[in-house]
Amino acid sequence: MNSRDPVEFMARALQLAERGRFTTFPNPRVGCVVVRDGAIVGEGCHEIAGEPHAEIHALRAAGAKARGADLFVTLEPCSHHGRTPPCADALVAAGVRKVWAAMRDPNPRVAGQGLDCLKAAGIEVDVGLLEGPARELNRGFVSRMERGRPFVTLKLAASLDARTAMANGESQWITGEAARADVHRLRADAGAVLSGAGTVLADDPRMTVRDFVGGTRQPDRIVLDSTARVGNSARVWARDGARRFRISGTSATEAEGVERIVVPLTSTGRIALEPALRELARREVNHVLVECGAGLAGAFLQDNLVDELICYLAPTLLGDAARSLAQMPGLDRLDQRVQLKFVDVRQVGPDLRITAIPVTGAR
Amino acid sequence: MNSRDPVEFMARALQLAERGRFTTFPNPRVGCVVVRDGAIVGEGCHEIAGEPHAEIHALRAAGAKARGADLFVTLEPCSHHGRTPPCADALVAAGVRKVWAAMRDPNPRVAGQGLDCLKAAGIEVDVGLLEGPARELNRGFVSRMERGRPFVTLKLAASLDARTAMANGESQWITGEAARADVHRLRADAGAVLSGAGTVLADDPRMTVRDFVGGTRQPDRIVLDSTARVGNSARVWARDGARRFRISGTSATEAEGVERIVVPLTSTGRIALEPALRELARREVNHVLVECGAGLAGAFLQDNLVDELICYLAPTLLGDAARSLAQMPGLDRLDQRVQLKFVDVRQVGPDLRITAIPVTGAR
Repeated sequence: MNSRDPVEFMARALQLAERGRFTTFPNPRVGCVVVRDGAIVGEGCHEIAGEPHAEIHALRAAGAKARGADLFVTLEPCSHHGRTPPCADALVAAGVRKVWAAMRDPNPRVAGQGLDCLKAAGIEVDVGLLEGPARELNRGFVSRMERGRPFVTLKLAASLDARTAMANGESQWITGEAARADVHRLRADAGAVLSGAGTVLADDPRMTVRDFVGGTRQPDRIVLDSTARVGNSARVWARDGARRFRISGTSATEAEGVERIVVPLTSTGRIALEPALRELARREVNHVLVECGAGLAGAFLQDNLVDELICYLAPTLLGDAARSLAQMPGLDRLDQRVQLKFVDVRQVGPDLRITAIPVTGAR
Repeated sequence: MNSRDPVEFMARALQLAERGRFTTFPNPRVGCVVVRDGAIVGEGCHEIAGEPHAEIHALRAAGAKARGADLFVTLEPCSHHGRTPPCADALVAAGVRKVWAAMRDPNPRVAGQGLDCLKAAGIEVDVGLLEGPARELNRGFVSRMERGRPFVTLKLAASLDARTAMANGESQWITGEAARADVHRLRADAGAVLSGAGTVLADDPRMTVRDFVGGTRQPDRIVLDSTARVGNSARVWARDGARRFRISGTSATEAEGVERIVVPLTSTGRIALEPALRELARREVNHVLVECGAGLAGAFLQDNLVDELICYLAPTLLGDAARSLAQMPGLDRLDQRVQLKFVDVRQVGPDLRITAIPVTGAR
């Protein structure tokens, strides 16, 4: 390393990893840079699951210059045979001098073995450079690996007085076009969208990514449908390469490639949310964007299963007869409230987008 | 004018006017700069009603240099005998060459007469430089003069789900210390605070400025008290140099220097808000900060009498059983909603402060 700081190379690797933001799921987003004599001689990123990992792309680009080079990668190189052969072996074969990994792989099948394998081959190893941004980039993958459940983003949209629709259900155009387009980006980023049967039956939403050009894959669609009320013709089940899951309390054969997941119901007949999320993690769902009605939104919040809340507020007041943002039965005392922390706020068209995280969440 | 632009001198005059922000009411905030050969030779501002106007301070500072000078003032010089002699006469006597006024005086007793008086004396006159900021600075005074009612700022504070208290009334610490301190600044800025009898009876608020060092005057206190339920010992009536008004549907003698204003009641027994505001304007109230419960807040909004809405949102969710931000009976259809425009949002401690203006307001 001569003229430039290692942090710059890792930042570049993170930047490369960003290229896979909308396409790598269920795999993590990973970027890699090969540096020789202070200059980048090869770089790469993981693009689509099943295709080569970032390290392989970067080593190929570096060619013979990889020998004796420093390699910067945003995630510990894998040591297991998954969809592709282990990257650690490729690094050893290429003869790199030192590997800088931003973070350990949270995957229990890797868990430091990739690094051990490198050390055993005499390669110097440094772990933790820009670990914060690296974990943030793969918060879905990290959640699935470390907690056995997807990262949950709850999206809400309401008037400034936190109402979503008039009492009669009238609700069109509460938030503007820019906010709706922003939601499509959230869907593409999460890679999976979850809703409840009530919303699907009422609005027949597609839950797809349309108003966004960054991604080419449609997100998985998940419907919580305790008594399997949603019919086969619902638009959410449309075939477009995405997986479609109906989470229900009863088993039955599904048509059209929809997978039915059976989970226990609560005493009030609702889908038990944590078991549902665990089943989704088992199916490699990293991150779900929850877009639903006030009942299900409140249940996610009260069950402490929301990792991030994104609330679009429209510049309007609908009055106290209008429909509430989130139903939270039994929340009667101030000390039972859901405490948040605002982490971002910005204007999206005429609306505001407020991002908050629960303060005592499961995160 | 040599090296510097007239806009710079007017900007300086506006900056000087700001010094009177918390003290000039019911008078406007005015600043003045005297410029000779491209350099400021005297400046001044209006500080307290009854004391000299900005022009007089600036002319005194300039002394003999005022002869042949350009004078920049944020408001048309007065031509009438009010609490002090007319400024226009003083300008003529001082022999200034040209007067730059940011705006005409909206006071019908002046209405261009000040400028006419200057022109008649052979002084060159320019009106409108930085008029926007000049009107904004005195939006209370302008409202009183042009519309015959004070500028109305409605302050609300709630959780992200727009709830102000639990159903049982429990509400302490919804917003944080920084937001509460910010409200004291709003009170000092408005110069008058208005609330309803329900809030005064429930909380016995002082409605004074305490947590703020910028001002030395207490705001006028106004209580809408249709049936005169608020007792004489209420803290809102405390003697501290501020005026105190009880707006009621019935006349009666008040103790302790409180003035009773009698206005008509609505068919539902509420104080008719527009007549109440007109009575306040007659008493030289420029700007009221409305801090009240959900019923009165909703009434101001539904009557289209809110010029600015400032909403503090705390990072918490209180649930749909909790108390609403604003009651708006009869608002059943989407086309009846109160449409706003967000004009500012910022973090105040852990809370957000959102400023909005009604889109189809009376403004």
